[in-house]
Order: sequence, then structure tokens, then C-alpha cells
Amino acid sequence: MENFLPPTSYDYLTVHKVSGAELTEASDVVAAEEPLEIRLGFGPSGQREHRTLAITMRTPGHDMELAAGFLLTEGIIHGREQLAGIRYCPDVTKEEEKENVVRAELAEDVDVAMPRLERHFYTSSSCGVCGKTSIDAVHASACPVLPTNGPYLDPAVLHELPARQRAAQALFEQTGGLHAAALFSAQGELRLLREDVGRHNALDKVIGAALLQEWLPLHDSVLLVSGRASFELVQKAAVAGIPVLAAVGAPSSLAVQAAKDFGMTLCGFVRQGRYNVYCGEWRLRPNQPSRV
Amino acid sequence: MENFLPPTSYDYLTVHKVSGAELTEASDVVAAEEPLEIRLGFGPSGQREHRTLAITMRTPGHDMELAAGFLLTEGIIHGREQLAGIRYCPDVTKEEEKENVVRAELAEDVDVAMPRLERHFYTSSSCGVCGKTSIDAVHASACPVLPTNGPYLDPAVLHELPARQRAAQALFEQTGGLHAAALFSAQGELRLLREDVGRHNALDKVIGAALLQEWLPLHDSVLLVSGRASFELVQKAAVAGIPVLAAVGAPSSLAVQAAKDFGMTLCGFVRQGRYNVYCGEWRLRPNQPSRV
Repeated sequence: MENFLPPTSYDYLTVHKVSGAELTEASDVVAAEEPLEIRLGFGPSGQREHRTLAITMRTPGHDMELAAGFLLTEGIIHGREQLAGIRYCPDVTKEEEKENVVRAELAEDVDVAMPRLERHFYTSSSCGVCGKTSIDAVHASACPVLPTNGPYLDPAVLHELPARQRAAQALFEQTGGLHAAALFSAQGELRLLREDVGRHNALDKVIGAALLQEWLPLHDSVLLVSGRASFELVQKAAVAGIPVLAAVGAPSSLAVQAAKDFGMTLCGFVRQGRYNVYCGEWRLRPNQPSRV
Repeated sequence: MENFLPPTSYDYLTVHKVSGAELTEASDVVAAEEPLEIRLGFGPSGQREHRTLAITMRTPGHDMELAAGFLLTEGIIHGREQLAGIRYCPDVTKEEEKENVVRAELAEDVDVAMPRLERHFYTSSSCGVCGKTSIDAVHASACPVLPTNGPYLDPAVLHELPARQRAAQALFEQTGGLHAAALFSAQGELRLLREDVGRHNALDKVIGAALLQEWLPLHDSVLLVSGRASFELVQKAAVAGIPVLAAVGAPSSLAVQAAKDFGMTLCGFVRQGRYNVYCGEWRLRPNQPSRV
């Protein structure tokens, strides 16, 4: 399980540590946060258009995976074959743009729904996709159907996942400040983990990595996220075909509703030997074989 | 300190609680998450334009404050007087849009920078504003200068804030799943607290409430946020004139850089009698008067 992070993923700095009323100078490490611009090339040869699709605040590292995952989970592409290429944009001139602009070239025959792209002409990171409308949109836009015949998990497997995730988090231990998304097999084996200051980005990196390795749909997988389960994490997981989403934190009402609509198993508060199952509990069956 | 939340802020549901390998049915409460569409009316009388500015996934409650805070912290308005009115949009027809669409009417003389609004033609909740570009933009767009002559805080005051915040969180105790942003005086007195599934929304609600009550700039305030300190939280706090930002979690590299640029005091990991000061430690002076 490879989780190499480049040196640009973190920064060293000098801080003052306070205990009681005392300040003491010390050195410290923080997780890096930088803007990543995702540019999209599309259209037939000779009439290619290039547009900025999104600018996201992310932790540098696994940028192609992040961009690829974003394209998939936001419904721009529906499979690996629709992506002709993806790389750091070679045309940038400013120093601060180097390795902060990714250009994804779609295959010529990919139809980009411009009205949908332009639906929100201005949103920021406090903004989400449009709730119920998006549930419709995902269903309508060829969302992979989650399997209805499994996978079946031993309920006890889930208790072990947070410790396995934490052990694989390269950056968290140093900085104390990163979200993680981790993909496990139904038997609890860690397959892939990514970290980011943004939890949506961590998930997009995982899904993008799986997409680029042609693992999709992830019908035999369990996803663990370090924080809470929002509607959008459920939606992104559904697009990748993930049937079981487990969160260390709480789910929201709309996350539960979306998981029900998608036929997903949603678990929350997975910690200290306990958790809640909000829907899809039929996938949890004691004494399933081959725990790792 | 008023923190009334409407019944739409949470949902009751049936879950299965897992302990070991045992599933037991139980009732539970989750924080509500619903889309809020913010529509903007602007332009001279007779030529008013109305456009959707953003759709954000939020916990219902304090929606006018959220919209007002968003307008301020995203640089659409620069003061209370630029807002002619704000209310739930009376024109919606679908049941699901009721109380999920807010219409803000700008004063006639407010100049809306459309190119800036249209800069990102599509972004989602995984997206942030554009890092360094936005630091420039905030500086350029009349960002209130933070006071350079205080306020001075006793370092020990900060230790007490997380417990005070938690005690005032109406919804967290029930759901275990909400972010909070709380405004304190320099002496540690709680002035205002808001909760939301999104941490940016919780902060926008606090700033919007302060804006509508004409408290801005918040030069004598300390802001505590329940999670990590990202670039955007620093930026939003700076726009409201908040000189001290304390986070229960870790800051990112860009959050530290932005706080330095703004002259803000930034503290992280504020818990269990300790914290780190990343910049602006000159505001922390032992034995300041009048602790609450």
C-alpha cells in the first residue's frame, strides 16, 4: 500500500507552545494547503476548448489522482477511457502556478454538458452541490448501481479499520491536521489511502487512484473516512460504486437519505469497538469468512 | 447568548447500534443537512438583475445570517448598509425549495464585480477560493485592517474557551456531528455561537449575525472554531476584522501564511490546557485585566 507524499505536502515552521500562561518557542510541522486549478480540454480535434473547471484548496501530492477523481465524481467523465490524458499544465508562467495547475484532456467523443457545468457561476468551498437536485442528477447521469447481492461483512471487521487507517497515515502523525480516506476490502484489508486538508479531496484522490488503475466499480470495497459523512461524500462514493461507507464521525440527515436512495450501507461513529448503522444493515452478517 | 435552533435543524431516525458483532435497533438524532440557494438581486431600479450566487449544503437555521455572512466574507458586500433586504424567496414553487432559497437584495448603488463572480464557472464543495490570488484579492478589496495595538489577551484565557463553546452547543450534544464557530470577547466572554454541518457555514453564520447587529469590525474579538484552521477560515475572519483566531484542530500552511499577512494571531490545538501560537504572539500577555 503506497502512500508516498512529496516534500511539498508539509511545511516546517517556528511556533510558540503555550502551557498554562507560559510561551516557549519550538519548531513544528503543518500540512501544506495550496490551490490546485483543474483545467479541462474538450471537443473535437481542431475545435478544442480549454476552460478552468475548478480551483480547490488541497494538500499537494497525488494531484493527477485528485483531478481524475474529481472529474469522475462530479459527473464530467464516466470511465477511464474518457480521459485522453492528464498532467501538470506546461503553459503556466508564474512560479506559484508550477505544479498547481493540472490539465485534463477528455477524449474527443466525450460530450460535456456545459449547462450543468455553468449551473453555479460562483461557489466557494463553503458551497456544496445542490442537494436533492444532485441526487436526481447522479441517478440520471449513469450512476453505477450498487450491488444488491453483497458484499457481506462480518460486523466486527469494521472495528479494526480506524486503527489500520491511522497506522497508514504518513502525514497525520506529523501534523495532526489531515483528513484521510481509505479503501478496504470486504475482509478489512487496506488497499489504498490518501490524505488531504480537505476531506472531499482525500476521497477524490482515492477514487481517482482507483480509476487510473482501472479498479472501478469498487463493488467489493469498504470506504473509511476520518471525519463526518456528508451528503457529498456519500454521493462521490456511490459514483465509484462503493457499497459500504464507514465514518469515524457522524452522518448528516441528507447523507443517510442519499445512502438509502443509493442502496449503500452507511456506518457512523466507528470507534472504540462501537458504531451505528444508518441503513443497509443487511450487508452486515456475523461470521463471514476470511477476515484478515 | 441566543442559540435557538429550529426543529428542522435535526432529524430523528432508527439505526442499528453495533457493539462487538451484535446489532441492536435504537432511535437516534442526526444533524440536518439541506441545500441553501443564495440568490442575489442587484443593479439600478428598473434594471434589477437576479442571479443564483451559490448553493451551499448547510444545517437549516440562521439562514439570513448565513447568507449575509457569505456575502460579506466573499467580498460581495463590504458593510450592512449595502444590503437592502434579505428574506426567504417568496417566488419558489417546489415544496423542497421552501425555506431553502434566500434572496438578498443589494442596495442600488452597490457595484457587483461580475468578472470576479464568474471567475469560477463551476466549483463544488471540495473547492476553495484561489489561494494566493485570493490573498491578493482580499487585500485589494478593502479588507479591514486588523488592529496593531491590541487587543491583549492573557494566554490562560484561551484554555477556557473550548469548554465554554461546547457548553453552548445546543445541537452537538444530541447529534455528535456539528461544527461550531464562537465569538468571545478578549476577556473570554462568549458573545455568539453558531453550529452547522459545514465549518465555513458556521463561521459565516457568526459573521452574518454580527454584521446584521452592526458589531463589525470585530476588533475586540476572539474566534474559536471547532475543527481545523484552513486558509478560508482565516480569510473570512480577517474580512470581519477578527484579530485572534483559535482552532481546536491544526492549521494548514496557507492558513499560517495568510494569518501572518493579515497581522492576525493564530492559535491551534487549543485543548487540554495547551495550544500552539503560529503567529501574532505579541497579543498574548500574561496578567491582562478582567478575566471573566
